[in-house]
Amino acid sequence: MGDYKEIDLQKLKQKVYNANLDLVSHGLIIFTWGNASAIDREKGLIVIKPSGVSYKTMAVEDMVVVNMEGEVMEGKYQPSSDMNTHIELYKSFPDIGGIVHTHSTYATAWAQAGKSIPIIGTTHADYFSEDIPCTLDMTSDEIFNAYEKETGTVIVKTFKDKNPIHIPGVLVKNHGPFTWGKDVEKAVENSVVLEEIAKMAYLSFSINPELTMNSKLAKKHFERKHGDNAYYGQKKTNK
Amino acid sequence: MGDYKEIDLQKLKQKVYNANLDLVSHGLIIFTWGNASAIDREKGLIVIKPSGVSYKTMAVEDMVVVNMEGEVMEGKYQPSSDMNTHIELYKSFPDIGGIVHTHSTYATAWAQAGKSIPIIGTTHADYFSEDIPCTLDMTSDEIFNAYEKETGTVIVKTFKDKNPIHIPGVLVKNHGPFTWGKDVEKAVENSVVLEEIAKMAYLSFSINPELTMNSKLAKKHFERKHGDNAYYGQKKTNK
Amino acid sequence: MGDYKEIDLQKLKQKVYNANLDLVSHGLIIFTWGNASAIDREKGLIVIKPSGVSYKTMAVEDMVVVNMEGEVMEGKYQPSSDMNTHIELYKSFPDIGGIVHTHSTYATAWAQAGKSIPIIGTTHADYFSEDIPCTLDMTSDEIFNAYEKETGTVIVKTFKDKNPIHIPGVLVKNHGPFTWGKDVEKAVENSVVLEEIAKMAYLSFSINPELTMNSKLAKKHFERKHGDNAYYGQKKTNK
Amino acid sequence: MGDYKEIDLQKLKQKVYNANLDLVSHGLIIFTWGNASAIDREKGLIVIKPSGVSYKTMAVEDMVVVNMEGEVMEGKYQPSSDMNTHIELYKSFPDIGGIVHTHSTYATAWAQAGKSIPIIGTTHADYFSEDIPCTLDMTSDEIFNAYEKETGTVIVKTFKDKNPIHIPGVLVKNHGPFTWGKDVEKAVENSVVLEEIAKMAYLSFSINPELTMNSKLAKKHFERKHGDNAYYGQKKTNK
Repeated sequence: MGDYKEIDLQKLKQKVYNANLDLVSHGLIIFTWGNASAIDREKGLIVIKPSGVSYKTMAVEDMVVVNMEGEVMEGKYQPSSDMNTHIELYKSFPDIGGIVHTHSTYATAWAQAGKSIPIIGTTHADYFSEDIPCTLDMTSDEIFNAYEKETGTVIVKTFKDKNPIHIPGVLVKNHGPFTWGKDVEKAVENSVVLEEIAKMAYLSFSINPELTMNSKLAKKHFERKHGDNAYYGQKKTNK
Repeated sequence: MGDYKEIDLQKLKQKVYNANLDLVSHGLIIFTWGNASAIDREKGLIVIKPSGVSYKTMAVEDMVVVNMEGEVMEGKYQPSSDMNTHIELYKSFPDIGGIVHTHSTYATAWAQAGKSIPIIGTTHADYFSEDIPCTLDMTSDEIFNAYEKETGTVIVKTFKDKNPIHIPGVLVKNHGPFTWGKDVEKAVENSVVLEEIAKMAYLSFSINPELTMNSKLAKKHFERKHGDNAYYGQKKTNK
Repeated sequence: MGDYKEIDLQKLKQKVYNANLDLVSHGLIIFTWGNASAIDREKGLIVIKPSGVSYKTMAVEDMVVVNMEGEVMEGKYQPSSDMNTHIELYKSFPDIGGIVHTHSTYATAWAQAGKSIPIIGTTHADYFSEDIPCTLDMTSDEIFNAYEKETGTVIVKTFKDKNPIHIPGVLVKNHGPFTWGKDVEKAVENSVVLEEIAKMAYLSFSINPELTMNSKLAKKHFERKHGDNAYYGQKKTNK
Repeated sequence: MGDYKEIDLQKLKQKVYNANLDLVSHGLIIFTWGNASAIDREKGLIVIKPSGVSYKTMAVEDMVVVNMEGEVMEGKYQPSSDMNTHIELYKSFPDIGGIVHTHSTYATAWAQAGKSIPIIGTTHADYFSEDIPCTLDMTSDEIFNAYEKETGTVIVKTFKDKNPIHIPGVLVKNHGPFTWGKDVEKAVENSVVLEEIAKMAYLSFSINPELTMNSKLAKKHFERKHGDNAYYGQKKTNK
């Protein structure tokens, strides 16, 4: 059974490696400005990108395996400096399997503006059931004590009355976006979508600061893809 | 003669397949956010993209053939979830042969802003004789009963006093653009043009919110390409 | 000597062909939205792009040769529908050898806004000694009689007190930019520069509507490249 | 030992050559609008791009070697017309090893707007400890006497109370950005970062002109990468 475990972990390393490269090819990352991770809930292990290693030379084997306490279990590199944010999210959001952090241009612009992205179109509603929230300011204590862990805590606080499965992303104020999903591929997809939504919303409010959206249209689109009677795409059994 | 019919349909599948891929290469579509279709008026059959199938693996044979009631006549996949919007437009606009729907960035931004795109330049007038209209809000009934069909109805209502051949596109409020044309290639071309017009108009109003256009210049440019004495391009017999 | 003339004309066709393709590769042209031409002053002949022919299939031999009256001297296609604008400019600006017209996004946005582009940076001053002017509205007579010729006349009127060599471009109101230069390569370069200047100016005024520029800095930069004591680049004899 | 010196200089030429090409591939330079240089402090020699030579034909051997007085020591071309700005910076900022100048779009837009880029996000704070300053207007004397040298002087004056190692870049008013670093590769990296920061800041203020940033978050991020207890990336001994 040890061998199977090894194979699972190897597959997860490959997925996390692919996810990091996909962020680059989608134009969301410059240099090393981002990180992706995935969790194996059964083993209690997280696979995450190493810190500050160039994407040009990075190999599958460079992915770092850590446990839920952030201890390195496998790998020769230091894990991403944002590791403790990832751990905090995995602990608080039990249904997510992958996390992505980027400094993508338009999502970061909204984060720097300190504004949630209002739900104003069906593109947004196809992926996020409500506004994409922006966190509050962090306190000096949070910043200077356990900064990366507290970044996670602030996100979790922001979701106190929200469903992280229906709103799979957040803007950390003056920092940038985190997204997640049932697996790391979905987390990457959500980061691409968030960037496009952020761009469209920026443009829409520039054209008409007084714009409005019918909340029923938003509900309809979210349900069409994610509700109990979802009918977008192919039936799962079709595959 | 049955064989000829088959060949025609096969050609139409190829055109619809190409159209969908062209939307991607023109940068108008992310993931599966769009769809193109074409109609064979003689047979009363529509060829349309399948719903939610990745463009990377999609094949010509995956195109779905439906009749005017939306029943699948050929193909192993579910048709695009927006099929009933396409059908409604084909029924109401008898001179069009192809339809494209995208969430292209700038056109969608105007749709989210709830604003028609004013005709303010010759680029616009070369393809659209007037403003590109934005639909009104849909009612709750329209949203929760036969949403996709009603999206088509709302578009048709918007064109009550307009000529869909002279204005080959529309913005569905808080959703995104639909374009059409005599065939699906022309519908794709119009979707590219609409996106560029939407971007230019956004920029122009940012530079000068009080800008104006001489309606005679607009008329001249539209007539130069589409009027009875059009003289842009090569004479048809030249080909 | 007839043969030499043929060779010269053939070279000019090649240059005009290359110029049109360069406009596409610089991202200034969608579909067939632009045209480039060059003049052989000695022969009184202009080589210009054919009208509405796809850039994908266009060949060197498809370039059209016309005389100063606009009569086709060589070539199987109709010349660009904007030919008469080109002719008017060649007649009035005796020192120019090439002309380019595009609908490039940001330059067209300023044209649609009906605003000249103010000289606010050294990038601008390195190529254009003053503001890039926008023409006035055309009259109904000008639009409905000899539209393309009158477009040229309106440009020439705009340069009544300006030096077209020091300001090698213009915005035609609600239409788009024309640029020129001593040869068609330089006209292409100026069209690329104009688009970038237009983008930078749009952004700069968005950041600070009250911005100013020291006219002496503008003068210095223009003189550094184009004055009698220009010292930018390599000495001509170096080549 | 003469040979070793030759090898060092050859390596520096290669680095400067690469740096110039990297600016193009990062999309920061059109035509010949930029220059990169590096200094060998021991020899008192600077390697810099030649003036106005096309990047398409430029070779490693075309890099020009000058001394601290700006005299050409090696190379067949004239050095960059901005050479004296580079020399002034090398003289005043003894810890820098490379300099880059571009007219990159968004950084130049802020320079043309005459505004410093406020520190409003962690992307900025990861590289620049404070606002990126914009210089004051140059005087007529500075412009018409020793313009390029005085451009350097104006930059140095702007840094009178600032640390050029903690703020490795500047906006020259109505002109564009200069960046630097311990070597020319780092100067290139900082020019890419500056352009992205400039774009994000432009967008953020468009979304929310009243935005604010907690200065403690800025400090934390700068220290995390550049402080005495920096922990971003891999330990140096790991390499």
